[in-house]
Amino acid sequence: MEFRKGKLLHDGKNKKVYSTNDPDHLIIHFKDDTSNKEEEKRGTIKKWGEHNVAISSFLFKLLETYNIHNHFVQVLKPNDMLVKKLEIIPLKVVMRNAAAGGICKRYGLIEGETLSFPILELYFKDDKRSDSMVNMDYVCVFGYATHEEMRIIDKIARKINVVLKSFFDRRDLKLLDLKLEFGRHKDQILLGDEISPNTCRIWDAWTGEKLGKDRFHSEKDDIEKVYQEVRKRICQ
Amino acid sequence: MEFRKGKLLHDGKNKKVYSTNDPDHLIIHFKDDTSNKEEEKRGTIKKWGEHNVAISSFLFKLLETYNIHNHFVQVLKPNDMLVKKLEIIPLKVVMRNAAAGGICKRYGLIEGETLSFPILELYFKDDKRSDSMVNMDYVCVFGYATHEEMRIIDKIARKINVVLKSFFDRRDLKLLDLKLEFGRHKDQILLGDEISPNTCRIWDAWTGEKLGKDRFHSEKDDIEKVYQEVRKRICQ
Repeated sequence: MEFRKGKLLHDGKNKKVYSTNDPDHLIIHFKDDTSNKEEEKRGTIKKWGEHNVAISSFLFKLLETYNIHNHFVQVLKPNDMLVKKLEIIPLKVVMRNAAAGGICKRYGLIEGETLSFPILELYFKDDKRSDSMVNMDYVCVFGYATHEEMRIIDKIARKINVVLKSFFDRRDLKLLDLKLEFGRHKDQILLGDEISPNTCRIWDAWTGEKLGKDRFHSEKDDIEKVYQEVRKRICQ
Repeated sequence: MEFRKGKLLHDGKNKKVYSTNDPDHLIIHFKDDTSNKEEEKRGTIKKWGEHNVAISSFLFKLLETYNIHNHFVQVLKPNDMLVKKLEIIPLKVVMRNAAAGGICKRYGLIEGETLSFPILELYFKDDKRSDSMVNMDYVCVFGYATHEEMRIIDKIARKINVVLKSFFDRRDLKLLDLKLEFGRHKDQILLGDEISPNTCRIWDAWTGEKLGKDRFHSEKDDIEKVYQEVRKRICQ
């Protein structure tokens, strides 16, 4: 079956989502435009979308070999990914292996400090509701997922983290934390979204150099090279 | 054995804690002084300590009949309670049956709105570290309790809530939320602290009148009567 782009369903900050000629599939177009959180800085990174598609699709295929099912089907064009259509569960599931970002200040931790074991955090995807951490009880009370679904998501998220952390380690990359999103597809919980330097906080294991989107937040201009380097280390 | 007050171990906002002539027991003195969170308002409520001792000891005894073990041993004087000495687990465990306080704004809930089922929240007791919600992973990473202990605390806290909510219901009191603290005593997890209008958010079931310490935070001066009324409804 040949999949063709249909209606534009969603035009996000980094991605556009299209329906296809098949109701069970979507096409995600990864943009080359980006902006930092505060929308202060907007720009185009050469081949940014392509790098993210390459890294994400590689990692989705890797996870599938570990029996971790996800929405990835195939790469259609360098910036376009065919995925299974998910009924999105509006949660951000964050796995942390080391302290970084807001939690350092919040809990008096040193940036880069390894946690004695991984921490799983839940946030509502809708930032307007709250960007405070929530827990499984909240998710269920708000009707976003059932207890049974959350039990499954908890288990999958921890497994993904273990697999990726060890994979990244072998490539001299330190995976400090990663953000995951899940959805329902035909009564199955699948991993969705992307897995890339946009959603993972990655440092060089030896130098501690930041290799991800937080690089863009800083004043460095070599973000393109950074994505290229991460892609090379992961995909080759 | 006769228990006598020893050294003052802790002089808190509402309570003083003394060692006793027995290393396994402490005496908690409940003060008649109080203040609101911001320390703006400080004052003496007549028989406040006595009311809190009466209510807490009644509820501790009630919980014991449900096989929920706690630190309460006996009332020594109207303001003094003999308790088992706990190794405190530095957590506040909050059980919520209805929305009230900070979570209304945080999650867009209406004050008094019943939650579809109880929510359990964890906070570090040390406010300096953070008054953000944490989860079990954080508790374990910080070494405050083991996963197994947290599993037990989760189970006990939910059971306490069910027992008290139904007990309060029968007395025309609506239990919106309550704060619990736990500790270790001879390899057992025991409920500690107090259970009173200081730690429970209670409304009159019919009028919605606030019957607890939040009354003191407001400008009403009838806090003494409120505590008397709650004591009467609970203990008689």
